[in-house]
Amino acid sequence: MTSPLTADGGITFDWIDGGGVTTPAGFVAGGIYAGIKTYGSEPRLDVGIIAAEGETPLVAAGVFTKNAVTGHPVTHDRKLLASTSEVRGVVCNSGNANTATGTQGAEDCARMAELAGARIGGDAGNVLVGSTGVIGRMLPMDKLAAAIEGIELSREGGYAFSRAIMTTDTHEKQYALRFTVEGRTYHVGGCAKGSGMIHPDMATMYGFITTDAPVDPAWLKQAWKSVVDVSFNMIDVDMDTSTSDMGIVLASGAAGGDPIDAGHPAAEALTTALGEVSMRLAKAIARDGEGATCLIEVTASGAATIEDARIAARTVTSSPLMKTAVTGRDPNWGRVMMAAGRSGAKVDQDNASVWIGPHCVLDHGQPAEVDLKAVSDAMGGELVTIRVDLGVGDASATAWGCNLTHEYVSINADYTT
Amino acid sequence: MTSPLTADGGITFDWIDGGGVTTPAGFVAGGIYAGIKTYGSEPRLDVGIIAAEGETPLVAAGVFTKNAVTGHPVTHDRKLLASTSEVRGVVCNSGNANTATGTQGAEDCARMAELAGARIGGDAGNVLVGSTGVIGRMLPMDKLAAAIEGIELSREGGYAFSRAIMTTDTHEKQYALRFTVEGRTYHVGGCAKGSGMIHPDMATMYGFITTDAPVDPAWLKQAWKSVVDVSFNMIDVDMDTSTSDMGIVLASGAAGGDPIDAGHPAAEALTTALGEVSMRLAKAIARDGEGATCLIEVTASGAATIEDARIAARTVTSSPLMKTAVTGRDPNWGRVMMAAGRSGAKVDQDNASVWIGPHCVLDHGQPAEVDLKAVSDAMGGELVTIRVDLGVGDASATAWGCNLTHEYVSINADYTT
Repeated sequence: MTSPLTADGGITFDWIDGGGVTTPAGFVAGGIYAGIKTYGSEPRLDVGIIAAEGETPLVAAGVFTKNAVTGHPVTHDRKLLASTSEVRGVVCNSGNANTATGTQGAEDCARMAELAGARIGGDAGNVLVGSTGVIGRMLPMDKLAAAIEGIELSREGGYAFSRAIMTTDTHEKQYALRFTVEGRTYHVGGCAKGSGMIHPDMATMYGFITTDAPVDPAWLKQAWKSVVDVSFNMIDVDMDTSTSDMGIVLASGAAGGDPIDAGHPAAEALTTALGEVSMRLAKAIARDGEGATCLIEVTASGAATIEDARIAARTVTSSPLMKTAVTGRDPNWGRVMMAAGRSGAKVDQDNASVWIGPHCVLDHGQPAEVDLKAVSDAMGGELVTIRVDLGVGDASATAWGCNLTHEYVSINADYTT
Repeated sequence: MTSPLTADGGITFDWIDGGGVTTPAGFVAGGIYAGIKTYGSEPRLDVGIIAAEGETPLVAAGVFTKNAVTGHPVTHDRKLLASTSEVRGVVCNSGNANTATGTQGAEDCARMAELAGARIGGDAGNVLVGSTGVIGRMLPMDKLAAAIEGIELSREGGYAFSRAIMTTDTHEKQYALRFTVEGRTYHVGGCAKGSGMIHPDMATMYGFITTDAPVDPAWLKQAWKSVVDVSFNMIDVDMDTSTSDMGIVLASGAAGGDPIDAGHPAAEALTTALGEVSMRLAKAIARDGEGATCLIEVTASGAATIEDARIAARTVTSSPLMKTAVTGRDPNWGRVMMAAGRSGAKVDQDNASVWIGPHCVLDHGQPAEVDLKAVSDAMGGELVTIRVDLGVGDASATAWGCNLTHEYVSINADYTT
């Protein structure tokens, strides 16, 4: 899998073992157990903060859920980032989405930002908020206040933060890399949570990316949107777009040098680095979909437009029938055509082709002679690759999802009880 | 549940026990086992025909899948109905969708119509075709030819036809009723198949409705569209719109009298009757969704437009998270708001309300004090009713679906093997 974000030749990206949001300089973070939600008998970290290490504010950009129903934190963050790109940090909780909680919920959200601001040298006007979990329940503000007051923030706190944002995730997801341009070394780190309700255009998903690169705020906003479009917006677990999704990037500038904008020699490499970390996180989210046993990578090629390629790839990725076929290793490739056909993308069914792994099963509209046993075997690994060529144009896009299993039903039949 | 199609006062609709497509006069039908597909060791009827009983042709109208990838029969029928509204009948098979089968598949479809035409006094230009089942496999034409030649057609054959169109359905679905306007009695009968891949805008679904009323072809076309919009287009099993769906209405005129058009005294009653039979079939399809244990009825009210009401009701109905919550009787009503929010319908989240059964759980944007145990109990019956008021306008619509169970995964993990 090559990245659709390409840096100019010669730039090497070095992945850093165990890296995360505090790998780049200029950030502290932490996570704490407030008692919002237990998983079984396990007290899991459920409140986390990322903050600027020193006095210099962070430059931030954000992309949020397109759901018409949004959590109060999404409303808060959108308003904040509409008025400034400089923030002190972000405070998050898991276990409660603070959504459909009425006027009390709005007040609680503002209070959460104030409490975190008091802890990290800011206020409700420069602290971002995230809440994920059950909809329609009030946040336990006493527990939150105590947690925010007691949270330990450090240069090693990225791991604890990555644990604190988890809901039904089976493990934390964090990555970091470094790269050097013209003698200056930059770092990009990130963590994410996902699992259920992961759908194109953001889902119950947090993605937090940090960098020590200095950035021009307007450039960052644009670069971040392009990165999210090929990473977090291309994953799907169950079509259900959540009310609380957010992808946030924070830049400390601690690496020094001039702010990076479109004309800066490091601009392309930084975009690629943000994309590499975000795509790796996105794939980790898809692979960790509730009950999933494999990652499904769907490429739609031959599309009339990039939008068509994206919607076709995402629709195939999200098809319950395709997802259950993978679970059963059932070489029922017609479901790929069915899903591409209902995606809204232009399809020339007399010129379309489909591959399962390396096996071409439909060749320019004609069923190919194929060993169904071999096709079934290609659906058996940790990574199942599917390609559909729509037979219309030249655009292509890749989406990631997971299979649908009995375990998904079990997890979601009993989420709040 | 009252019908959104209302007849003028005084008209009574009498349901006829065991009625189906041959209850109205002027039709013969039948079903036969061709050997296209067995279910376990059971040889199940897999080819069916409905035909005009005498020389008078049937007046037909049809609505088809919106999937960009379509089976050859859909292409055939669309072309046929674009040139004429008079047909001899319809021939169907289950077990094979004749989709993504290339040029050979197109020839096989035409041949199927010719073979049926030879049996019922027509030709490829006036015989409709339907094929449902696995995509990407060639029809066994020898078996089909023998079956069509040997099929028995009779005035009692509606039941056999209703069995022949089944795929993973657990039982046949057929209904009929009679009503009288100004001393003349009319009948409407119908049968349908569904189960998996039932999604708004038609899914792997056949709906065949017959009537002995004489009709004006242009009026029938319009009336049928309005009926499908509140019945077959408002059900959902798994979001996957199939390539082969069709809703066909056939009118024999055997009841006598003037052709019914908008100005005819029986026009409104006939529309209502078509709607009642179609909605009853649609609900039976949803209830019989793969692995389902209950029918879910979702009403979206307070919508800005009827389109918004429909898309909101259908999106809530199709949400995997809502469907699994019902399976677990988990009173996680936030998922209703989440799904309404992502539907594309306008929602005023500060004015929206949600009911599970009789229990208001969200009241004009504020979570209601509610006994979660009682809400859970309201999710436990054969019929689970959910209402979401979008808080914007006056339009409303109802959709039907089913819960998502382990059994759905089992059925679809192993469909072709």
